[in-house]
Amino acid sequence: MLNFEFYNPTRNLFGKGSLEKLHDLMENYGQNILFLYGGGSIKRNGIFDKVMEQLRDKNVIEMGGVESNPTLDTLRRCIARCREEKADMVLGVGGGSVMDSAKMVAAGAVYDGDVWDFLANHDQLPQKALPVATVVTMVGTGSEVNQNFVLTNPQTCEKVGKNGGDACFPQFAICDPEYTYTVGPYQTASGAFDTIAHVFEHYFAEADQYMPIQDGMQEAIIRAVITELPRVLEEPDHYEARANLMWAAQQALFGIADMGKGHGERVEHKMEHILSAKYNCAHGAGLAVVVPPFRRYMCKLQPKKYRQFAENVFHLDCTSLSDYEAGIKGIEALEAFIHSVGLPTTLRELGASGPDDVEFLASELVKQGRVTKGTGIGYNELKEMYASVY
Amino acid sequence: MLNFEFYNPTRNLFGKGSLEKLHDLMENYGQNILFLYGGGSIKRNGIFDKVMEQLRDKNVIEMGGVESNPTLDTLRRCIARCREEKADMVLGVGGGSVMDSAKMVAAGAVYDGDVWDFLANHDQLPQKALPVATVVTMVGTGSEVNQNFVLTNPQTCEKVGKNGGDACFPQFAICDPEYTYTVGPYQTASGAFDTIAHVFEHYFAEADQYMPIQDGMQEAIIRAVITELPRVLEEPDHYEARANLMWAAQQALFGIADMGKGHGERVEHKMEHILSAKYNCAHGAGLAVVVPPFRRYMCKLQPKKYRQFAENVFHLDCTSLSDYEAGIKGIEALEAFIHSVGLPTTLRELGASGPDDVEFLASELVKQGRVTKGTGIGYNELKEMYASVY
Repeated sequence: MLNFEFYNPTRNLFGKGSLEKLHDLMENYGQNILFLYGGGSIKRNGIFDKVMEQLRDKNVIEMGGVESNPTLDTLRRCIARCREEKADMVLGVGGGSVMDSAKMVAAGAVYDGDVWDFLANHDQLPQKALPVATVVTMVGTGSEVNQNFVLTNPQTCEKVGKNGGDACFPQFAICDPEYTYTVGPYQTASGAFDTIAHVFEHYFAEADQYMPIQDGMQEAIIRAVITELPRVLEEPDHYEARANLMWAAQQALFGIADMGKGHGERVEHKMEHILSAKYNCAHGAGLAVVVPPFRRYMCKLQPKKYRQFAENVFHLDCTSLSDYEAGIKGIEALEAFIHSVGLPTTLRELGASGPDDVEFLASELVKQGRVTKGTGIGYNELKEMYASVY
Repeated sequence: MLNFEFYNPTRNLFGKGSLEKLHDLMENYGQNILFLYGGGSIKRNGIFDKVMEQLRDKNVIEMGGVESNPTLDTLRRCIARCREEKADMVLGVGGGSVMDSAKMVAAGAVYDGDVWDFLANHDQLPQKALPVATVVTMVGTGSEVNQNFVLTNPQTCEKVGKNGGDACFPQFAICDPEYTYTVGPYQTASGAFDTIAHVFEHYFAEADQYMPIQDGMQEAIIRAVITELPRVLEEPDHYEARANLMWAAQQALFGIADMGKGHGERVEHKMEHILSAKYNCAHGAGLAVVVPPFRRYMCKLQPKKYRQFAENVFHLDCTSLSDYEAGIKGIEALEAFIHSVGLPTTLRELGASGPDDVEFLASELVKQGRVTKGTGIGYNELKEMYASVY
């Protein structure tokens, strides 16, 4: 087990009706609240009005229109507004993009220099930020209860995920699974697959080491997504299943399940970030395309861990198989799952329009220097992976 | 899944050499540090000197001699000293008893009334406390990273476990598995079994409901204790195994693994608290005696959950068995484990001296009103359970 530091001071209010606590929770955070949200679905499903009712004693600075994969322009606009109106707190109500933006805006508002350099620079951690709070309405990133954010620069096709440090933890998170009932099947499946991909990066990271607690917790999270997502797709108002997906997403990036493990290569997230920067696809949908070819490649290098995955997650009988064969059987089960929940399995479905795209994606990833040495993956290997799912 | 609130702001510094961070961590907590420890083993194994070196810039108020199952007298003495010396922070270095005491002293020092009433009263939560920090040297309660404590009143044989509320979370915890190398086999096994018992209370609490994440996490924690404790007993300096036991104990009572579940009846902890108040036995050793008979009783009421335990924790083949038979097979495997790690299986081994003890224990538990209605357990049932392990 590697040395680690675990710290997460976010107060998580999870369950039916938890928004009713918002009014009292806001009491200690000043008068001017920047209320960030996305494309307006919260106005249609009534969450907007409920939040405004809870903020009845506050001066609300409303900022809608945060797009998925939020851009630098949007952030700059929000930060400027935050300063003009002297916001005391940033409240993000939405999915990962909105909640990530809330953290970036909160940190950017109290920072003087160029916000892209600041946010995208991994060596530079926000030392302070306005207090942030979240109300989650779409499941996947677990952003509501962690300090991470992802920033997109569409001009350069760069999408950077970052741990924002202690200053970026939400003060509290309102997590009512009922608020995700109106999220459609594609977005729901995409968010759920994002959860699996988050777990994968740590689960497969220390492939030579079995850690009974961490491995067992991670397998439990993945199994939960695999059993609960189909239940939600069949019955969108299934409270238990929605709650399990939400809790799975939070635990995938909360830290407890992977403390003491390394971060692994994170190659598939890097592969996907270029997809969503280029095609503006849902993050989890992009992951559904690139995770299987990447894992097939890795299975050759670390077959034993992939056997563990096949046996413990899918409960496959692998007694007569080699580790590699067992691992591939597990990945095939994952592919069947992806197909069964309606997620894409090819780049074409995401918007790729010709073989040039395969070359572009591979070379872009190499150019951004986002592939580490450990895996032996370079341009040719990436091209092969992308081509296999073109 | 029940509604829940998860909050735990303790900073957990886990791993080899983490004590070296203590000096810097203490920087913001004032000059006068009450340094609590137990029977003096930390003086023999060198941890005392290492802590003092880290506290070199502080005014250290030394208070050794905190006994296991700390008494009200000890607490009062520490609280008085805390006030006299105007302590700014309480640092507990030891096992559960010392760390629990640190929290109670920190809360008691800023409270005016009678400390027993205050601490033992479940309706009265400490609203404030001096800052607390912990250095764990004995594994079992997870007290280093949670807000709970247990208080003993030997005059009345009362032992009260309590959630101390937000004020009692340690600011940070130093958790170096190497510091537990010198803990002997009996204490190690006792602490490890305490971990299992903590998980049981939540694992079996919602017996009619399968929660894929929580159940899976809890099964992972129990499995880890079952595989790692024998490794430690064979090789006390086995870092990975010691680290796994420590992480298991912390996760058993950290909250993540049981959020959304009820607290169950907690009957075996109540049964045991009377044992350790009467015989001053190690808490986990007392639990090893009372958990099996209690779980045999409960298996009749909720056989399906006990089958799940047998299959998922011990991986027993139960295909041809009824739920009840499968559940009993799981409990038998647990009993075999208890025996194999050298823990007691009878009251006599704890110090019981005659059949009168069985009657005393049963009636005392009933008198303290610590048995709830849900299980149908009353005097006769308790007497039977105690007698079965006399």
